[in-house]
Amino acid sequence: MVCAPRGFKAAGLWTGIKAGAVKRDLALICSERPCTAAAVFTTNRVKAASIIVSREHLEQSGGRVRAVIANSGNANACTGAAGLAAARRMAALAAEQLGIDPKEVAVASTGVIGVPLPIEKIEARAADLIAGLSLSHDNALEAIMTTDTRKKTAAAGVTLPSMASQKPGPAAGTPDRQTSAGPDAAIQMGAMAKGSGMIHPNMATMICIITTDAAITAPLLDRALRRAVNRSFNRLTVDGDMSTNDIALIMANGAAGNAPIESEGPDYEAFAAALEGLCVNLTRQMARDGEGAGRLLTVTVQGAAREEDAALLARTVAGSNLVKAACFGADANWGRVLCALGYAKPGGAGDALFEPEAVSVVFASAAGAIQVCGNGESFLFSEREAKRILMEEEIDIDVTVGTGPGRAQAWGCDLTYDYVRINGDYRS
Amino acid sequence: MVCAPRGFKAAGLWTGIKAGAVKRDLALICSERPCTAAAVFTTNRVKAASIIVSREHLEQSGGRVRAVIANSGNANACTGAAGLAAARRMAALAAEQLGIDPKEVAVASTGVIGVPLPIEKIEARAADLIAGLSLSHDNALEAIMTTDTRKKTAAAGVTLPSMASQKPGPAAGTPDRQTSAGPDAAIQMGAMAKGSGMIHPNMATMICIITTDAAITAPLLDRALRRAVNRSFNRLTVDGDMSTNDIALIMANGAAGNAPIESEGPDYEAFAAALEGLCVNLTRQMARDGEGAGRLLTVTVQGAAREEDAALLARTVAGSNLVKAACFGADANWGRVLCALGYAKPGGAGDALFEPEAVSVVFASAAGAIQVCGNGESFLFSEREAKRILMEEEIDIDVTVGTGPGRAQAWGCDLTYDYVRINGDYRS
Repeated sequence: MVCAPRGFKAAGLWTGIKAGAVKRDLALICSERPCTAAAVFTTNRVKAASIIVSREHLEQSGGRVRAVIANSGNANACTGAAGLAAARRMAALAAEQLGIDPKEVAVASTGVIGVPLPIEKIEARAADLIAGLSLSHDNALEAIMTTDTRKKTAAAGVTLPSMASQKPGPAAGTPDRQTSAGPDAAIQMGAMAKGSGMIHPNMATMICIITTDAAITAPLLDRALRRAVNRSFNRLTVDGDMSTNDIALIMANGAAGNAPIESEGPDYEAFAAALEGLCVNLTRQMARDGEGAGRLLTVTVQGAAREEDAALLARTVAGSNLVKAACFGADANWGRVLCALGYAKPGGAGDALFEPEAVSVVFASAAGAIQVCGNGESFLFSEREAKRILMEEEIDIDVTVGTGPGRAQAWGCDLTYDYVRINGDYRS
Repeated sequence: MVCAPRGFKAAGLWTGIKAGAVKRDLALICSERPCTAAAVFTTNRVKAASIIVSREHLEQSGGRVRAVIANSGNANACTGAAGLAAARRMAALAAEQLGIDPKEVAVASTGVIGVPLPIEKIEARAADLIAGLSLSHDNALEAIMTTDTRKKTAAAGVTLPSMASQKPGPAAGTPDRQTSAGPDAAIQMGAMAKGSGMIHPNMATMICIITTDAAITAPLLDRALRRAVNRSFNRLTVDGDMSTNDIALIMANGAAGNAPIESEGPDYEAFAAALEGLCVNLTRQMARDGEGAGRLLTVTVQGAAREEDAALLARTVAGSNLVKAACFGADANWGRVLCALGYAKPGGAGDALFEPEAVSVVFASAAGAIQVCGNGESFLFSEREAKRILMEEEIDIDVTVGTGPGRAQAWGCDLTYDYVRINGDYRS
């Protein structure tokens, strides 16, 4: 879907980065015209070379990144100075072929940590990569996948006032005013993502590349992306930490001809809401494809004092191994939900986030809904009915913790035999 | 071993608390004479009734608890006012039979959350329980076990100056001066513990009961217990949180005739060090018996600025699902160790705990030791040799993060198919 917005192309091919692997492993997504761009990177203290280089390029270009080169099969993390040089070389190779500045190129890597990246294999195929650019995202998507079992793409649209509907004024930023198409501009967004090691939060290795033909300033794009990521990908995690390689990047090339979004207001809100929906969509796909996952788990917490409190509680429940294992067994073990709520720990002061006596819990799915806990105590319910509900592939755990306005969702998946199998010998 | 110290007895029998279960489920451990006592309780916001009652009794008696009644098969948590009344009744039943004050009785429960405790079954067997008191801990130990596959007991001894070696003075506290036995008093400590849901930190349900015939004031006993728990059971967890039911209780009856420990100094230090060793011993047994565990994992971090930093890093590595899964597969995937170090999060300010470039990692076991990472990068090593080392039942991960004096250990176990099986349908 990254090629749905006007002016974006993608390519993907096989270079043999991981010895013996036969699937594509190198991808390029780029805009034909300049972009504004924003990215959210891992907060892990150990950062992959691609993260360091992408952040540098985003800063040095003043948020003008317009291409991203990405590889799977090797994380290029814990690889020292040679790894950093290899990541810079990846950006330079793409820039040379595209005829743009290396600072306009971001880099993403995913795979095993601590193995030198065979940059010569990428060099050998750089020209072929650019030659393969097309309006299909298929090859690029395959090239960034690792243990993913499903392709994760999403698209969203939003209609904003066009350039033509605005009063004339001095050109602001990148957008090419020739593309204006009338009083309304149909903005498109497209995204691809990889991420499958999501069963436990801290092990996610996520790459998410979002394209849009909206015209929007880099600072506002950054703000919208951070809000969307906070309410989506970060809700797939227990504590907000990320792997060594996580990156979510958005590039906006203005080709839709909308009046540039240059301040907060209705246009910005419409754009940010669409971006948030796109990211939530991808988050659910990632949870659904958690390594070994059989069921998608959506935890909704309402009635908290603040959204942050609700988010912390929801993330903690969704991240509990015991809750996940109970979901695997379709076991209505609501005590584990209360236990997880009880150990949710605020980052700052240790304020009580809820009163256990006020908690109610409902399990729901396409097969129905059943209350299992009220006032913090057991609620008379049919175990048979609960199991029938929990046997579905998508399960909701709806928790009310009080009467406050704070509400948030978090996503996870069940903990299965296959998770252990996949991670017991990942490198072999 | 709780009956090894002079003056302690134990009993355990079957009451049928959990329908269909055939093993013993009710235990009593008590001292023939008054005790000083201390306990560490769960920090979970959701607390079992037994925790609430035990804390009350410890406070109301001024640290004079001398008996503990414990059940398995039912956690008596999230059971409301009825559950609280049931826990108080448990203490009262034991007190009646022993002829002591209910405030001198602590209560412990473990099992499923949210199911009313059938107190009438305990009432029906209270007299039999007391009649069964003996110098064997076997029945009591069986009665507190749940998914434990191994019995966890430990003993320790320390020699301290006896009453007779001290200059005469006013009697201080509990100890009976008649038992003084010469210039040295051989202090004994004994302990039993249950805890098996330890693969992920927050799901531990731990009961640990420690007895000693030392004479020591309640405040110093409390201080020694907290230090020991902090360096043992709390190192089995990622974030220091605990389940709804965790309790570690120590009772000291002074029967050994040592000069009462009434201030910090060499005697206190000797006692506290022995207690710490006892708790570390039990911690390793719990990790070894983690649900589904095949291997014991000991993570040692040295070179940190402070012990707390080292402890945080060690706990995070030991608690990483990916590290645990790699241990299951005997896979020398050291990148996951670095990744876990990188997301360790201090509770307070977000200071950098280490420089990734300074990290080295060694895997070791009875089969040998092998360095796999140096200066934060891959260290040339034989995968075959590493696998041979990691195939052992006890694995050490030794991490150096710098040149500071901070050192700490943490314990965990591998993540296996059996963990998922055990927790997928715990209640069935």
